[in-house]
Amino acid sequence: MPPTAETPTDLPRIELRSDNAAAVAPEIMESIVEANTGSALGYGGDDVSADLTAKIREVFEHPEAEVFCVASGTAANALGLSALVPPWGSVVCHETAHILVNEPGSTTLFSAGAVLQSVGGADGKVDPDVLQAFLDGANWGDPHASQPSALSLTVPSDLGTVLDPDEIGRLTSLARARGLRCHLDGARFANAVAGLGVTPAAMSWQAGIDVLSLGAIKNGAMSTDAIVCFDPELADGFRYRTKRAGHTASKMRFQSVQLLRYLTDGLWLELAGRANAAMARLTAGLTLGGLPAMFPVDANMAFFEVPDETATAMAEAGLDFYRIRPGVIRFVTSFATTFDEVDRAIAIVGEVAGDVA
Amino acid sequence: MPPTAETPTDLPRIELRSDNAAAVAPEIMESIVEANTGSALGYGGDDVSADLTAKIREVFEHPEAEVFCVASGTAANALGLSALVPPWGSVVCHETAHILVNEPGSTTLFSAGAVLQSVGGADGKVDPDVLQAFLDGANWGDPHASQPSALSLTVPSDLGTVLDPDEIGRLTSLARARGLRCHLDGARFANAVAGLGVTPAAMSWQAGIDVLSLGAIKNGAMSTDAIVCFDPELADGFRYRTKRAGHTASKMRFQSVQLLRYLTDGLWLELAGRANAAMARLTAGLTLGGLPAMFPVDANMAFFEVPDETATAMAEAGLDFYRIRPGVIRFVTSFATTFDEVDRAIAIVGEVAGDVA
Amino acid sequence: MPPTAETPTDLPRIELRSDNAAAVAPEIMESIVEANTGSALGYGGDDVSADLTAKIREVFEHPEAEVFCVASGTAANALGLSALVPPWGSVVCHETAHILVNEPGSTTLFSAGAVLQSVGGADGKVDPDVLQAFLDGANWGDPHASQPSALSLTVPSDLGTVLDPDEIGRLTSLARARGLRCHLDGARFANAVAGLGVTPAAMSWQAGIDVLSLGAIKNGAMSTDAIVCFDPELADGFRYRTKRAGHTASKMRFQSVQLLRYLTDGLWLELAGRANAAMARLTAGLTLGGLPAMFPVDANMAFFEVPDETATAMAEAGLDFYRIRPGVIRFVTSFATTFDEVDRAIAIVGEVAGDVA
Amino acid sequence: MPPTAETPTDLPRIELRSDNAAAVAPEIMESIVEANTGSALGYGGDDVSADLTAKIREVFEHPEAEVFCVASGTAANALGLSALVPPWGSVVCHETAHILVNEPGSTTLFSAGAVLQSVGGADGKVDPDVLQAFLDGANWGDPHASQPSALSLTVPSDLGTVLDPDEIGRLTSLARARGLRCHLDGARFANAVAGLGVTPAAMSWQAGIDVLSLGAIKNGAMSTDAIVCFDPELADGFRYRTKRAGHTASKMRFQSVQLLRYLTDGLWLELAGRANAAMARLTAGLTLGGLPAMFPVDANMAFFEVPDETATAMAEAGLDFYRIRPGVIRFVTSFATTFDEVDRAIAIVGEVAGDVA
Repeated sequence: MPPTAETPTDLPRIELRSDNAAAVAPEIMESIVEANTGSALGYGGDDVSADLTAKIREVFEHPEAEVFCVASGTAANALGLSALVPPWGSVVCHETAHILVNEPGSTTLFSAGAVLQSVGGADGKVDPDVLQAFLDGANWGDPHASQPSALSLTVPSDLGTVLDPDEIGRLTSLARARGLRCHLDGARFANAVAGLGVTPAAMSWQAGIDVLSLGAIKNGAMSTDAIVCFDPELADGFRYRTKRAGHTASKMRFQSVQLLRYLTDGLWLELAGRANAAMARLTAGLTLGGLPAMFPVDANMAFFEVPDETATAMAEAGLDFYRIRPGVIRFVTSFATTFDEVDRAIAIVGEVAGDVA
Repeated sequence: MPPTAETPTDLPRIELRSDNAAAVAPEIMESIVEANTGSALGYGGDDVSADLTAKIREVFEHPEAEVFCVASGTAANALGLSALVPPWGSVVCHETAHILVNEPGSTTLFSAGAVLQSVGGADGKVDPDVLQAFLDGANWGDPHASQPSALSLTVPSDLGTVLDPDEIGRLTSLARARGLRCHLDGARFANAVAGLGVTPAAMSWQAGIDVLSLGAIKNGAMSTDAIVCFDPELADGFRYRTKRAGHTASKMRFQSVQLLRYLTDGLWLELAGRANAAMARLTAGLTLGGLPAMFPVDANMAFFEVPDETATAMAEAGLDFYRIRPGVIRFVTSFATTFDEVDRAIAIVGEVAGDVA
Repeated sequence: MPPTAETPTDLPRIELRSDNAAAVAPEIMESIVEANTGSALGYGGDDVSADLTAKIREVFEHPEAEVFCVASGTAANALGLSALVPPWGSVVCHETAHILVNEPGSTTLFSAGAVLQSVGGADGKVDPDVLQAFLDGANWGDPHASQPSALSLTVPSDLGTVLDPDEIGRLTSLARARGLRCHLDGARFANAVAGLGVTPAAMSWQAGIDVLSLGAIKNGAMSTDAIVCFDPELADGFRYRTKRAGHTASKMRFQSVQLLRYLTDGLWLELAGRANAAMARLTAGLTLGGLPAMFPVDANMAFFEVPDETATAMAEAGLDFYRIRPGVIRFVTSFATTFDEVDRAIAIVGEVAGDVA
Repeated sequence: MPPTAETPTDLPRIELRSDNAAAVAPEIMESIVEANTGSALGYGGDDVSADLTAKIREVFEHPEAEVFCVASGTAANALGLSALVPPWGSVVCHETAHILVNEPGSTTLFSAGAVLQSVGGADGKVDPDVLQAFLDGANWGDPHASQPSALSLTVPSDLGTVLDPDEIGRLTSLARARGLRCHLDGARFANAVAGLGVTPAAMSWQAGIDVLSLGAIKNGAMSTDAIVCFDPELADGFRYRTKRAGHTASKMRFQSVQLLRYLTDGLWLELAGRANAAMARLTAGLTLGGLPAMFPVDANMAFFEVPDETATAMAEAGLDFYRIRPGVIRFVTSFATTFDEVDRAIAIVGEVAGDVA
């Protein structure tokens, strides 16, 4: 379908593909520029990195938390999990989990062979009953079977839904009762915390999480996510795990400063709040227009059932987004998404859906 | 020994520990800031990353070269080597090689078990006769012995010396004659190229190198080094190797732009030239003062035999440097080292060495 | 339920748990004893091992086939697959495949991280349409997804069913069309070959198989299964793969002689034929008695739906077997299972099932 | 040099290549044959395997020792060490250690990347002062350096010398003081115990050893060596480590029975005593004839400096042995070496050496 006269081709396209397509938040870019003064010891031996550790402990209200900047969420997840499972263990996760669907081979690499085992649950959330049944049915102590050794939860989930602290705690309790350690893939952790209005502590260690992948890149940072470790006995090992994986940055101060600024003065929650608000406005508008999201929209991501021709028309009209599978599309907002873009997106969808339907 | 009245304690300390302690070159920082506009596809699907590939091909005069930004030289080395050796192979390197001394376990991790085997040679350079003898003595085809599968050269070496293209070519020829592939650890590649005044092509693929670890961080970049692959058959594998290792940056454009700027308008060689010039001035001054370097000084690094008390006095007088072992210290200059700092350093050493001796 | 007066408690229990619970076939034990003369070079440099290679080539009608004795089927599968997939690849197998269900972590270990991906199909057989759909839906070339690199078929399957050469060939053709290499887990290969009355060649390389795990232990051997490699380019690597995994036996002649005898004079097919015949008689009897098997019985294994109390009563009456899950039991016969035992088993089931029902 | 008329070409050649070239001891072969009765649960769930555990505890006087039969000494060493070191650790061993020289890549494979670091010492024995200096010089806590995590001693050493319990204890004390765990490669453990006349306990856990590779194949067994674990906390992990490596034999009873017989009624020490006595007689005779061994001969292995032409003449005269490097040959006796063979060997060497010299 060619663009019609009404198609606003002279306007910039609207970015709804992924929050990692966004630029760097100006505050964070500024902090990087400001950090560029004089010399400093490499590999984390600098003052900014020390400040970051202090900031993490303050923000997470945990006096022994340790933070390790790594170059990606993939690294944070796989290196984080590697500390929680033996090579013959398994990581239990939701069947839609990013570590299972999009990072295959990373956990096996860094854990030296541990496998992923998936469990189900509605709306991208691990169902406690399903988890319990899985744990009850595991062949404990049988070397012919992978031994479930860690639970990995994703919050927000890959469907854009959010487990609250109670839900997380319930799942980690079931897991801990069978000896599993607990990891949280928080690639969009800020969006969950901002959305629920709870404390970072409540969403992590107070809910039974040992190791958190703290995402920042999708929410305005440039080149660092982080492993946050709440178990002092595991922390030292991460110094070796990250170094041998090539994730201990030589000029670490420029990684640390991003996270330091991110966590200062609530910037991370402000940025996430903007993304969440944009998504809320978008889904409200689309629902009104007759296109409800497929799952609860708890953060900055939503999925919609849209015929492929409609999707094509949307794209031609200026929307950038992902087609998850035939008939299903995904919209993701970021801190940089403006209400104006949201309103244009709603208009485009309304126009095109009508046009096609 | 307490600082005397003459100790210039009011002046900033002089950074000679490592070139990775330097800040980011202003030109590169500027390019990062300028890249921060609008949205772009992640994981390398952006225009800047495409431009970087074109730039690499131009600078290295190789129409099929591929470049993969990774977060550290460790990652570049270990991932680069992983493409050249089977799990039962060995990487042959100089006994002072960084991959052997300071990155133990990284090559074993990414190559799934390949080991490092060291050979000797004066001044940190692999000796062709020693290499030949090693290759002649290897238990080829014997599964009770690691099979030498790759040669890794370091240029400049970890002792600050530089193999020229002929020397590299001679070594790679010996290796290739026995079926080994060839890797060059170029953490300070620009310093070698600038020092010799040869082309990047002459120092790499034209001299028999398959995969180059192209350092940038030690010479003014912020958060990226790179794997440069000259063998089209190996290149595709690096897309998977880097991703599963967590080294495919989500916001890749901010990594790519650093290298793009680095390689544009000869900036990389200009920065390296400054570091080399500072070191040349420093060693000239120290030699005049009676403290010759232990090895030929071909780039931006030099070692000196200095009694431990003298070293302590130097440190107290304002010099920052590494003590390699009792009686031996190392100075490294960077693009940011000023001639003024060099002259102060010469003065301090002269003063202190006299003072102590 | 206590044994009644009729329970034949004075008779030995009937072994239907697994064919690996059987003893060693007398012919094979005899060959081991006879091999125990004089000295011989270790690690496969002996005459018996050379004879085995010749025998494999003869039996499989393949002049370049190579055979590598290893200590278990697990080793044969995982080492065999390690030659077919890159570390970022995946092995596609049926959801009931032994490599997936019972050898988790072995493939990840030896392949340095490759993952298993399962597809469905009735009766334990990969369905060609399901396989094709899986292959069509794979994210080829996307480093965020495991790249399907090998197809592993299990014949007989873990449900006791057998793919014939045409079925194997159809599946391997689909796989090969997408660049996958093909592996056959033949832990009970002899039972399949004997059951179908086809040639070993037809069931393996002629049907598109690159690497075969040739089971022998479950069919009368003592301590060796084998990797049979039909691709000369892969063969050399197995010498290193097996050695570094500790699977190159020092006194290899005692491993080789087992397989040599196994494959001589059709012993392997005779032994398998006995196991198959025992199972055929058993299932015929049970079907007559009103207990049909759950899946087609193509070899020496069958599954039955039996209430747990009935299963308990069967066990108390002298049958040894596995309970797969509540309500489902499995019987496996071996070369050592006698018709007398089969008839007693039928009688026990009849008695007990009636008794309980 | 062609055989002369005097060359006893009609006599069988004399096996001095390796003790693994010997056949299986008749007592052990008999035990295998006797074990071949009826069915038994696989994977170690049989009675013989339970008896073996009891026997190990009795022989080693350790109530919690656990034993894991594996298919080779390589597997015993590499799997054993994998329990003692983290992936970023190193195993410290003598520069002549089998694990370093002949099993490269096995430790890296099973430990997921740990490297080997060698130390020196005369006669194949780790020198305590050298070890201490190595430990003092290690970069503890520095992620840029492998962290020494285990000491591996080889007794008898690869030069045929034997550390006594005091020497072992002194070395393990030094290692333990720095937090290292201790492994003993006992491929020829029986030869050391028999030679010294000490208890197995004194040579292992009482001397600070956590995990022992208990060799049997070189001393009369057929297809199994074993891991003996003295640390109850590590033992459970070996069940998974061995299974996923394919070293948990399906018909384990035939592995277990070999070791059970080996350790019963002192058979292992009797066999080893024979090998030692043959070597003692051989070296006495050769010393008298003017050919002293290069190192102390503490067990069943000796090295000699012999011109290459002499070695060739020896081989032509009927001796089978290994040439270690130009000018150096190695003789190894086994339980099967007869005094008659020894005397013939002495005669041949005397004749040939005179002949050549």
